[in-house]
Amino acid sequence: MANFKGHALPGSFFLIFGLWWSVKYPLKYACRKNKKICFFGSKVGFQRVEVIEGAVKAIFSLIGMLAEQFVPDGPHLRLYNHEEKQWSHLMNWQHSTMYFFYGVSGVVDIITHTTKAVPVAMDRLMLAIAVFVEGFLFYYHVHGRQALDVHIHLLLLFAVFGGALCIFLEVFFRGNIILELFRSSLCILQGSWFWQIGFVLFPPGGGPEWNQNDHNNLMFITMCYCWHYAFALLFVGVNYGIVTWVVNAKLKSAQPMEMELLKSRQRDQDSEDDL
Amino acid sequence: MANFKGHALPGSFFLIFGLWWSVKYPLKYACRKNKKICFFGSKVGFQRVEVIEGAVKAIFSLIGMLAEQFVPDGPHLRLYNHEEKQWSHLMNWQHSTMYFFYGVSGVVDIITHTTKAVPVAMDRLMLAIAVFVEGFLFYYHVHGRQALDVHIHLLLLFAVFGGALCIFLEVFFRGNIILELFRSSLCILQGSWFWQIGFVLFPPGGGPEWNQNDHNNLMFITMCYCWHYAFALLFVGVNYGIVTWVVNAKLKSAQPMEMELLKSRQRDQDSEDDL
Amino acid sequence: MANFKGHALPGSFFLIFGLWWSVKYPLKYACRKNKKICFFGSKVGFQRVEVIEGAVKAIFSLIGMLAEQFVPDGPHLRLYNHEEKQWSHLMNWQHSTMYFFYGVSGVVDIITHTTKAVPVAMDRLMLAIAVFVEGFLFYYHVHGRQALDVHIHLLLLFAVFGGALCIFLEVFFRGNIILELFRSSLCILQGSWFWQIGFVLFPPGGGPEWNQNDHNNLMFITMCYCWHYAFALLFVGVNYGIVTWVVNAKLKSAQPMEMELLKSRQRDQDSEDDL
Amino acid sequence: MANFKGHALPGSFFLIFGLWWSVKYPLKYACRKNKKICFFGSKVGFQRVEVIEGAVKAIFSLIGMLAEQFVPDGPHLRLYNHEEKQWSHLMNWQHSTMYFFYGVSGVVDIITHTTKAVPVAMDRLMLAIAVFVEGFLFYYHVHGRQALDVHIHLLLLFAVFGGALCIFLEVFFRGNIILELFRSSLCILQGSWFWQIGFVLFPPGGGPEWNQNDHNNLMFITMCYCWHYAFALLFVGVNYGIVTWVVNAKLKSAQPMEMELLKSRQRDQDSEDDL
Repeated sequence: MANFKGHALPGSFFLIFGLWWSVKYPLKYACRKNKKICFFGSKVGFQRVEVIEGAVKAIFSLIGMLAEQFVPDGPHLRLYNHEEKQWSHLMNWQHSTMYFFYGVSGVVDIITHTTKAVPVAMDRLMLAIAVFVEGFLFYYHVHGRQALDVHIHLLLLFAVFGGALCIFLEVFFRGNIILELFRSSLCILQGSWFWQIGFVLFPPGGGPEWNQNDHNNLMFITMCYCWHYAFALLFVGVNYGIVTWVVNAKLKSAQPMEMELLKSRQRDQDSEDDL
Repeated sequence: MANFKGHALPGSFFLIFGLWWSVKYPLKYACRKNKKICFFGSKVGFQRVEVIEGAVKAIFSLIGMLAEQFVPDGPHLRLYNHEEKQWSHLMNWQHSTMYFFYGVSGVVDIITHTTKAVPVAMDRLMLAIAVFVEGFLFYYHVHGRQALDVHIHLLLLFAVFGGALCIFLEVFFRGNIILELFRSSLCILQGSWFWQIGFVLFPPGGGPEWNQNDHNNLMFITMCYCWHYAFALLFVGVNYGIVTWVVNAKLKSAQPMEMELLKSRQRDQDSEDDL
Repeated sequence: MANFKGHALPGSFFLIFGLWWSVKYPLKYACRKNKKICFFGSKVGFQRVEVIEGAVKAIFSLIGMLAEQFVPDGPHLRLYNHEEKQWSHLMNWQHSTMYFFYGVSGVVDIITHTTKAVPVAMDRLMLAIAVFVEGFLFYYHVHGRQALDVHIHLLLLFAVFGGALCIFLEVFFRGNIILELFRSSLCILQGSWFWQIGFVLFPPGGGPEWNQNDHNNLMFITMCYCWHYAFALLFVGVNYGIVTWVVNAKLKSAQPMEMELLKSRQRDQDSEDDL
Repeated sequence: MANFKGHALPGSFFLIFGLWWSVKYPLKYACRKNKKICFFGSKVGFQRVEVIEGAVKAIFSLIGMLAEQFVPDGPHLRLYNHEEKQWSHLMNWQHSTMYFFYGVSGVVDIITHTTKAVPVAMDRLMLAIAVFVEGFLFYYHVHGRQALDVHIHLLLLFAVFGGALCIFLEVFFRGNIILELFRSSLCILQGSWFWQIGFVLFPPGGGPEWNQNDHNNLMFITMCYCWHYAFALLFVGVNYGIVTWVVNAKLKSAQPMEMELLKSRQRDQDSEDDL
């Protein structure tokens, strides 16, 4: 969907996921030492969250695919136009393909965290593949368009391939908070940049169009991308700060009454560790 | 061999290996905790399988080389045509070279798993080199052809170089099931894509030829590549599921009678571990 | 600021940091076994140094940003020129953006080493991001200039992206002296190269201008870049040697009187380790 | 020196080093379990070998530099020709720069293995830098030449940058026999390819010149590169086999008389390990 909504929709998906991750991973990190207190810190609680996340990802992808297929000027599942002897609505089909891989990633998340048969790192591999496929399709997607249009889409690839690499590294360094926060920031960047693309290419409210071939516009957009990332980092940082502060505050208020219990439990665990 | 068979042959080789790997590695993974029951889980059994695999690889490569050399319009081992003062059948020679490196990889597999003198990771390094050489030759191979022909061959390079990287990582992370499944999926992708190339460039049954310079065809082929990969992932997933299910079922039925034996053995092992 | 000072300023910043690092890390490495003697070797002492370094980085970045904004022909915080309907002073804004990310890196350094809430590797990630952003902006920065101007700026990217990669690796291999010295050398290279760019593009004292399109000049500049790196390596090596020599000399003179104390302390520690 | 000798000289250097490495590392690997018997397996013996290797590297580099500077049509240390207002003999200066970095690497080898002050992985970092600088200069070196000349030089970059990456990995995975053999093979490839370049561009004995723009020649040269690598792998494999066989044979003949001594020593060591 080459219009404003077609960019705002995936942008919102990525923003929601990026912001959610920038809360989830700090929470997990802050709770790692206080597993008795946070529900989230327990293994069962965290698995349930992962399953829900996978389900939401799958549903979002389904919404995206349906929207791409069944908007009024969409392909309605028709791939080849036999009258014009032409492929039909290839753009929409490519977008559907991108959503599809994210959907698969969501399904793999659910399977990984409900059964024990699948190695747990599989969710990261599948997510890395989904992100890579998005970048791969985008790369060939913008062939032959105007300069600004190409440039603004290709900038996205830094966030996409950076994210794919980061997630692939997580296969080997699972639970590394640095990589998880880095991924969150790149995801927020993608989300906000989709919105930016929408605003630039399809100025809402009939604003003036951007000159597609002005070199200054290219230069500005490149810099603007960095500012988006600065904001993404700010969001991640603020969320990290709030989460850490809340968990620590909750921990302190919980300590007096839990103290005894904790201590005795810890003593039990220590003696277990000794064995 | 620039015809349908010349793409179907390597395609079949890669498909067979990809599907075999998508059975072998899940089997090994499922058996790792139940080494007493699976023949496959034992070290000797697994080594024998690796040797057979290496031999099959070497034989396949030999078939490929002979086919490239001795087809009616092949070079018949003649490299330079002195009459025309031209290199003779360079295409066939390049394909032979690709097969040759896979052959070397097969031989190294056999040596690695029959003697103890060679470090075991050598088989992965040699396979990574073979895959890289394939990609290297392909990259320069398609110079000067038409747009669709070039594009459809270059897409292959994502699977090839992705596979080479994955196998190179296995030198350091040997036995990582994630990498092994990833490699299987990329191998299946390569196999099915060779078939696709054959169908597109040499439509069998005298079908209509593809317009080589239509931008829409390029766009469709790019997307089609992703669908092939989706199917490759599906195959790997289904095989993984079946293998895991079969092993677990076999394990449960074996338990009543093996139970006692296992327990006593385990007790022995535990007491060994304590020492 | 496309003039001599605009290149000398960042060049000096990078030189100062590179040379400082080439003293700091060898010092830390030499002190690692003699923590009782060097103030620097103690954890508290080292943290204080890191905080000061972060503060200096942040202040330098602020100076850079202010200089870019408020030089006589700067943008004075105005981004869009409504009269000419043009972006205003994009070059200066891009430079400000680069400085800004280094400033953020400085602030993150301070936060990381004063509170315990933030994982310590965060300082490296943020520095890697800052360096990458610098390279990213430079890459698009030089579009459409003359051959020598483009080439001399792009050569910088080897030091920049090499540095970004090196620092990113430090997230996983923190405290690896090899990576730290490598980073120091690349930082010195960047600093001295900025000075070189200034001398080539804006010959001070009204010297003769370089022929921008002479292929020989490109060839010479490429080689010259390697010589700069050779000098950077020399500086790092000499600093390493001096620091190691000084620490060892100080250690030997300190030994007679500290000997008894050290031994008894060590005995205490050993007995602690046994528990 | 753009002539046959100018390619044969570095080619011979690389061949000697590649073949030496393909003997040295298997020897070290075979001796690792029998340190009492091989002189080479002892730490002191191995360090002495490393120092000699570094010295040879430094001397070779010096020879290369002197040859580039003082051949009859060389620059004789003159960088700028003030009469013609041109850089003088830039090619020779670039080659000298390449040799210089290898020389530095040799010096660092000596320092690393004679003093304890320098971390041991520094020799690999410096070698990786030297190899990278070679590739870096080559990349810009061939600008504006004819098609075959450019192609045949750029092919070299696969061996060069592959080698640089491999050596950089050795900083982290020191002593990994797989990487060491891989490096040996790439070094032999470089050496033999330099000879090949000499034969193609300056056919000795006044043979017929190659058509520089014939596409078939490019195709053949690409394939020929792979054959060179196949031979390099063969050499490494054969050397590995011979070394392993000789060490094992020597070991067996040594066993009867050394047996008693070994056993008693081993018993001592085991009891040390227990403590």
